[in-house]
Amino acid sequence: MLTLYHAPNTRSSRIITQLIALGKLDQVDIRLTDIPRQDGRGGHDPQNPHPEGKVPLLVTESGEEIRESTAIMLYLSEIFPSALAPAAGESGRGAFLSWMSWYGNVMEPVYLHHVAGVSHPVLTATFRQWPEAVAYLAAGLTGRDYLLGDRYSLADLLISSPFLILPDAVPEVPEIQAWVARCAARPEVAATLAYDARASAELGLTAA
Amino acid sequence: MLTLYHAPNTRSSRIITQLIALGKLDQVDIRLTDIPRQDGRGGHDPQNPHPEGKVPLLVTESGEEIRESTAIMLYLSEIFPSALAPAAGESGRGAFLSWMSWYGNVMEPVYLHHVAGVSHPVLTATFRQWPEAVAYLAAGLTGRDYLLGDRYSLADLLISSPFLILPDAVPEVPEIQAWVARCAARPEVAATLAYDARASAELGLTAA
Repeated sequence: MLTLYHAPNTRSSRIITQLIALGKLDQVDIRLTDIPRQDGRGGHDPQNPHPEGKVPLLVTESGEEIRESTAIMLYLSEIFPSALAPAAGESGRGAFLSWMSWYGNVMEPVYLHHVAGVSHPVLTATFRQWPEAVAYLAAGLTGRDYLLGDRYSLADLLISSPFLILPDAVPEVPEIQAWVARCAARPEVAATLAYDARASAELGLTAA
Repeated sequence: MLTLYHAPNTRSSRIITQLIALGKLDQVDIRLTDIPRQDGRGGHDPQNPHPEGKVPLLVTESGEEIRESTAIMLYLSEIFPSALAPAAGESGRGAFLSWMSWYGNVMEPVYLHHVAGVSHPVLTATFRQWPEAVAYLAAGLTGRDYLLGDRYSLADLLISSPFLILPDAVPEVPEIQAWVARCAARPEVAATLAYDARASAELGLTAA
């Protein structure tokens, strides 16, 4: 059986969202864990095999460890094919892989540079900055409801995920605001919040 | 036909290396271009459709634009299956996707933070720092010749690529040093250098 190390209300929650959307939550052994939180709570769980104590981490049936949300989401999309991801050879596959890689390679670093107030010519040369990322996302959403067109995909799930927990980070661009609202209204998003509320209680992270 | 926007001796050179290794260089229309260089040469080529003027950019036969080396390498590995990448469902697929994603999501940002001398708690919380990345890479190479085991793969090609052009960046870890030497000795690496020398001359980037 696949094993997922998951901490509620963290980056691994989007893997829960994917599994709920796929109807496959019962086919993965979810190991609840905790990570160091920004408010000082939590800590590195020695039961979590991730070398840096992070989540998500997926362990395959043959024991391969998969880190990074992008890799885990791609792997699960291959194990559980669905309309959420164009398969190899299908129309949209190139755009799908491009958006999935852009999220971790560009959007996440430039957003964190922006939040941290960090700027350096070496970083700008490679990643550019938050305004360029926002412009790229806005261009990708112009004239279509979702990043791949009419159809919600894992690219929307992944790239909208920070905006769902950080509403103040949503750029004041009508195309992006409308798309975030569409992504937030997905039933698996509400189901993930309910799942994580139960998981937090189980871990003793919230008052009973 | 696939179209690749390539600037010699840049991040897009590893796509050339992949195509040479696959024996498929003649099946892609390579558009030579230039990008702004750190020494002030070069510039944004208006013929390059990449929204930020970067390379690589791959355009599929149906016009889908794929940015980010990881996405392009994955896409090409699906168009041209080979022993360089475990296909979906094959042993090693999970580890392969994990390394491919780790490169752009973690290794590249932490290396650039290291070079730029940038440090911030927000960045460390997400990415950790260069020593953790080096430790992860070293652990991945302990007891094996390549990241997936006995077999050289696109993960080795991608992750070794910065060390081939920045020898001073190679960590003083015997496992990593020996692996970089193995990767550097691949025939497609020498062939890429020759290809890029011709491309630079063609673009007028080097003295005749």
